[in-house]
Amino acid sequence: MTILDELGIPADRVLTDPDVTASLSHDDAEWAPVGRPLAVVRALTAEEVQSVVAACYRHSVPVVARGAGTGLSGGANAVDGGIVLALDRMDRVLEIDPLERLAVVQPGVVNDDLRAAVAKEGLWYPPDPASSPWSTIGGNVATNAGGLCCVKYGVTRDYVLGLQMVTGTGELVRLGRRTAKGVAGYDLAGLVVGSEGTLGIVTEVTVKLRPLPPPAITVAGYFASIVDAGEAVAASAAAGLTPAALELVDRHCLAAVDAWKNMGLSVEAEVVLLARLDEPGAAGELAAERMVACFEGAGATYAVRSTDEAESEALFAARRLAYPALERLGPVLTEDVCVPKGRVPEMLGRIEKAATDHRITIANIAHAGDGNLHPLLVVDPGDEAAKARAQLAFDDIVAAALELGGTVTGEHGVGLLKKPGLVAELSPVVLDMHRSVKQALDPRGILNPGKVF
Amino acid sequence: MTILDELGIPADRVLTDPDVTASLSHDDAEWAPVGRPLAVVRALTAEEVQSVVAACYRHSVPVVARGAGTGLSGGANAVDGGIVLALDRMDRVLEIDPLERLAVVQPGVVNDDLRAAVAKEGLWYPPDPASSPWSTIGGNVATNAGGLCCVKYGVTRDYVLGLQMVTGTGELVRLGRRTAKGVAGYDLAGLVVGSEGTLGIVTEVTVKLRPLPPPAITVAGYFASIVDAGEAVAASAAAGLTPAALELVDRHCLAAVDAWKNMGLSVEAEVVLLARLDEPGAAGELAAERMVACFEGAGATYAVRSTDEAESEALFAARRLAYPALERLGPVLTEDVCVPKGRVPEMLGRIEKAATDHRITIANIAHAGDGNLHPLLVVDPGDEAAKARAQLAFDDIVAAALELGGTVTGEHGVGLLKKPGLVAELSPVVLDMHRSVKQALDPRGILNPGKVF
Repeated sequence: MTILDELGIPADRVLTDPDVTASLSHDDAEWAPVGRPLAVVRALTAEEVQSVVAACYRHSVPVVARGAGTGLSGGANAVDGGIVLALDRMDRVLEIDPLERLAVVQPGVVNDDLRAAVAKEGLWYPPDPASSPWSTIGGNVATNAGGLCCVKYGVTRDYVLGLQMVTGTGELVRLGRRTAKGVAGYDLAGLVVGSEGTLGIVTEVTVKLRPLPPPAITVAGYFASIVDAGEAVAASAAAGLTPAALELVDRHCLAAVDAWKNMGLSVEAEVVLLARLDEPGAAGELAAERMVACFEGAGATYAVRSTDEAESEALFAARRLAYPALERLGPVLTEDVCVPKGRVPEMLGRIEKAATDHRITIANIAHAGDGNLHPLLVVDPGDEAAKARAQLAFDDIVAAALELGGTVTGEHGVGLLKKPGLVAELSPVVLDMHRSVKQALDPRGILNPGKVF
Repeated sequence: MTILDELGIPADRVLTDPDVTASLSHDDAEWAPVGRPLAVVRALTAEEVQSVVAACYRHSVPVVARGAGTGLSGGANAVDGGIVLALDRMDRVLEIDPLERLAVVQPGVVNDDLRAAVAKEGLWYPPDPASSPWSTIGGNVATNAGGLCCVKYGVTRDYVLGLQMVTGTGELVRLGRRTAKGVAGYDLAGLVVGSEGTLGIVTEVTVKLRPLPPPAITVAGYFASIVDAGEAVAASAAAGLTPAALELVDRHCLAAVDAWKNMGLSVEAEVVLLARLDEPGAAGELAAERMVACFEGAGATYAVRSTDEAESEALFAARRLAYPALERLGPVLTEDVCVPKGRVPEMLGRIEKAATDHRITIANIAHAGDGNLHPLLVVDPGDEAAKARAQLAFDDIVAAALELGGTVTGEHGVGLLKKPGLVAELSPVVLDMHRSVKQALDPRGILNPGKVF
């Protein structure tokens, strides 16, 4: 008897052909190492997930959960000799309750599909990672995904009320609640959010919803330097503005999107800042005016409240498409540092310096409003020397973020790429606390071993 | 050498006189059992807290942290032979950063004092338990305190960015972050919030702030029955309204406050609902109109948008004073169940039934908008038979809340009073997960033993 005989999953959903399993063994972090799994298993129910994890527990075999594979830190990469548990077919929205403002979904539901389903009831699921057309709620929960509007509306953890999951010992449990409030015991549901598949495999999520937001006003600012754009971000924070999105996109990204999608983004600027203000009525008008003033005060070459809805939608679409557009040009190493808002200009300067020092192209997209920056280190395919230089630039950026009081990962997770960064960020005692909690909930260490720490 | 010689605290802050320690050995849950501590120790610094916990670790002596003692579940009650660690003198606001919208405070800072300090910078710390004039941020963190405005603005956990704390092994650690976002490792800071002193003793808190909210409109509704008021709550949820507060106060509470403070609350109604709407401008006006309509539709005898600021302030003040006012009349057993919003009318009916069945006076205050109900079971001093009946009514209310899909504690915590309720609410496997996490972070079980589970 091998473990494959004990999974309790029909053979047509136990994939072992190496060509097939290879394509399902990694996420979108092109630079992270990938293991060779024993099999990729597609589960359809919580009970099937439980059966697979229980078999892995008996055999002490690693199990790595997988959603859409859009992660950017290697968190869903297969482990040698382990099982990859694909949850993409568990894709049903089980319940939408407009009165309680919640939805119950399976982990494989695509973020945008959930958003579309609840919009029909006048409701909104705010967390909107740029991967929202593809990424799943299960993956969003595993990484505590953020997105564009979390600067005002919060991240995935803020919207998870409860979970059903399978523990490291193969037990199927419910954590959290359906009520608006609740303090019965530890917040184990919140602990599982962002734990990157190392504490449990989520089989159902109860999410909090909000009413659909009012229509927003877009303000665009064009800047001749990225540091000027950073000053505009800090100025808007100092002015007490609370934009519903405040995104930065540089000319590398706009050019890559244009080359791919031919969107006609003929922007004569080094960097564009895009703000959304969604206070209702006159309050929104006033906020938009003040945002324009912040942009101008920081030296924008052009700042305007958008009157062209199509144009502002195109700019936001370009921001969302920046990552896949750059991926077309060569291997992309994605950064995800987050610094205090007041340090954004300095951090952007440090990123420029890393690019110059190591002779690397660094494109920049950023959730600038909350200090979460995504410098994208792009190299030509096959240029190993450039790849080595990019790794040095990556390390410099991580070190600079910590020096400025920031964190090594704002929303992508630690996965494999940020393991050294985590050790630099957390004290040895706090890392030991992580190991103790992991040991407590996954005593055989079968859940996504080798990730995070 | 006894443990008292090893605490590292000057003798004048190590209190051992039983008359003195008794008064500092319990919180405000009058019905919960209280132990006799070895000493009450007043710490002034994080290092002193660490020194005390380290001594307790070496001697395997229990240590119970204490703020203002306003808790309502017995969570801060002393344990026989243990140390009570009083943190009320660690009461400094260390930093307010308007640009990053955060404050760093010691655990003994009183909630209202923090609110006043940040208001000077145009900022707001939303969590506002009714105990806010007395309760401390440390205690608020320990219980994940809610309050009036959390129906719209969230609870304590939503505002804790980071913590400094002493672990069960006497290590001083920092958890969490100062940045707007961050996913570096497990959310151990969030895990500690609401853990009622069983996972660590918090020595510093970094809290997120918001801009001060716009002025609010108050809507008051008077109802002839408590179930009607519950229907109005459910109707406002169904209408998609998001009040900044939606409080219920019954005539028992109003009468008790009036008898104490002589506020002239001559309300001719069984129950009053108080709503605050704080959308800016016309949106707020519209929301207020719709709230009036919800109240009227549910059978309010009188519903009005308040035009008298003093009157509406008096009503909210009465709501805040209800608990201490009732305490003057006799021992109060406080409930804290939370049910789905749609089940509020039914739950209020069940509370009435428990009062009738067990011939007990039950006064009602409630954060009705999020389904968090605080029936207050009042008995005459010395009436032991009534006390026994009240306990039965309490148990009926807990059982009804669970039956309606609710939780046994919305915001007060488990402490001692809700330990049986927790066992009823959580599955044995989930309780075991709690024990494993506790064991992982407090291996000798010295932190507030015997509480929660």
